[in-house]
Amino acid sequence: VSRGALYVVGIGPGSASDMTQRAREAVEKADTVVGYTTYIKLVEGMLSGKDVVSTGMMKEAERCEQAVRLAGEGRIVALVSSGDSGIYGMAGLVLEIMQEKYPDLVPFGFEVIPGVPAVCSSAASLGAPLMHDFAVISLSDLLTPWELIVRRLEAAASADFVIALYNPRSKGRPGYLEQARDIIIKYRPGSTPVGIVKDSTREGERVIVSTLGEMPVEEVDMTTMVIVGNSQSRRFMDYVLTPRGYKGKRI
Amino acid sequence: VSRGALYVVGIGPGSASDMTQRAREAVEKADTVVGYTTYIKLVEGMLSGKDVVSTGMMKEAERCEQAVRLAGEGRIVALVSSGDSGIYGMAGLVLEIMQEKYPDLVPFGFEVIPGVPAVCSSAASLGAPLMHDFAVISLSDLLTPWELIVRRLEAAASADFVIALYNPRSKGRPGYLEQARDIIIKYRPGSTPVGIVKDSTREGERVIVSTLGEMPVEEVDMTTMVIVGNSQSRRFMDYVLTPRGYKGKRI
Repeated sequence: VSRGALYVVGIGPGSASDMTQRAREAVEKADTVVGYTTYIKLVEGMLSGKDVVSTGMMKEAERCEQAVRLAGEGRIVALVSSGDSGIYGMAGLVLEIMQEKYPDLVPFGFEVIPGVPAVCSSAASLGAPLMHDFAVISLSDLLTPWELIVRRLEAAASADFVIALYNPRSKGRPGYLEQARDIIIKYRPGSTPVGIVKDSTREGERVIVSTLGEMPVEEVDMTTMVIVGNSQSRRFMDYVLTPRGYKGKRI
Repeated sequence: VSRGALYVVGIGPGSASDMTQRAREAVEKADTVVGYTTYIKLVEGMLSGKDVVSTGMMKEAERCEQAVRLAGEGRIVALVSSGDSGIYGMAGLVLEIMQEKYPDLVPFGFEVIPGVPAVCSSAASLGAPLMHDFAVISLSDLLTPWELIVRRLEAAASADFVIALYNPRSKGRPGYLEQARDIIIKYRPGSTPVGIVKDSTREGERVIVSTLGEMPVEEVDMTTMVIVGNSQSRRFMDYVLTPRGYKGKRI
C-alpha cells in the first residue's frame, strides 16, 4: 500500500472565487473527496475522475472516520467543509479520531488547509464590523451546555467585544437568539449596530443591517451569521463600521 | 472622469497559494495598487503595467486616504493588506475616511474582499486549536487602553474561550505577553496547550507547541500568533487539538 494523505480542506464560505489556490490544489490532488452533500456541490466542477463520498444523512463523526480510514488504506483524501475547517469544522474531529486510532504514529500525510471563514466573508459584506477584538460564539447547545454559552455571552458583552454568533437559530432551539440579545443588551445600548448575513457569498446572499434593540430575529436561521457591534460601532450607508481604536487616534 | 472603484483586499496570510481567486482578480482588475511595502512584495508577480503606491514609511491613515482619493479620481484601486482586511486591517479605516469625505454619497464602487486571516492559517499549522468558541485579542495598546485589554483577557479567560493573541509582543511593549499569561493562568492550569506560529505560511514559518506555564515568551514577536487552548484542549503529536464538545458527544 502506498502512503496515503488526508487533507482537511476549508473551501471558503461558498462561492468558488472565495476558495484559495491551496484548497483547490488539494482537491485536485485527491483521488477521493469526502464531504457533506452541500459542500460537495460547492466543488462539483472539480470532481471528475475522483471517488466521491458524499452523504447528507451520515453523521459527521462517521464521515471523518471514513476519511481517516481511507487515508490509512493509502488513498489521497480531501475532506472538504465550508468556511475554515478549524472553526466549528472537521479538523478537530479528525484529529480526535486519529489520536484514538493511531496514538503513536499516523501512517499517512496530514495537512489542515485554512479557508476564509464565514465570519470574515459576512463581515466583508457588512463593511468592517469586526476590526477590533472580537469573540466568536456558537449558540448551538448540542455539544456545549447552554449555561456555558450564557457565561460566554455575558463575558464577551461585559468586556465590549464585537460578538459573532454562529448557528444563531434553529427550529429545535427557539428563543436562544432572543436570550443572547437580552444578555448583550444589558451591557450595550439598543442602538448598537447588528449585521445579519444569510448565505454569505452564495446565491441569494442577503445582508441586513439593524440594531440590537430591533434585530429582526425571524430573518435569522442556521445559515445566517449575526455580528453585534461593540460600543464604538456605527452605521454608514448600508455598512457597519467598528473603528480600530478607542482613542480617536489614527496611526 | 469615469467611475472609480476601491477594492479593500485581504490577500491572505502570506503565501500566494493562500490567496483567494476573488482577491487575485481584484488586484488584476486594478490600475493602481496601494499597500505597505511588505504586502506589495507578496503580490509583486501581479503588478506589471499598474501604478504601485508602496511605502513603508507612510502611516496607515495616509495610505487609506490616498486610496480613497485615487478611487474618487476615477481610478480602479486595490488596497492590499495581509490576512483578512476586516481583522485589525484597513477596511474600517477606509470606511471611516469615506464617511468623513463623502457623508452622503460615495462616488465610486466599493468592495471589501475577505481573506484567510492569520488566526486561521496559524490554527491550521497547529492542527485544530480553535474549533470551539474563541476570542481574538490584540495586545497592542496603541489604539486601545491597556486596562480594557486586561478586562478582555480576564473575561475571555474566565469564560473558557480559546484565546488568540494578535500583536503579542514588541520592543515597545515589553512584558505585555507575560502579563496576559499571568491573567489567563489564574483560570487555567499551567499545562494548558499553547501554540505559537511565527510568519504563518511565509518563508521560514516556525511552529512551536508549548504550555501556558512554560511558554517561551522570548520566541514571540510582532509577526507571531499565540493561541492559548481552553480547558478541553490537548496535545497530540505536534498538534494542539480542541474538541468541539464538552459532553463527549460526537454528532
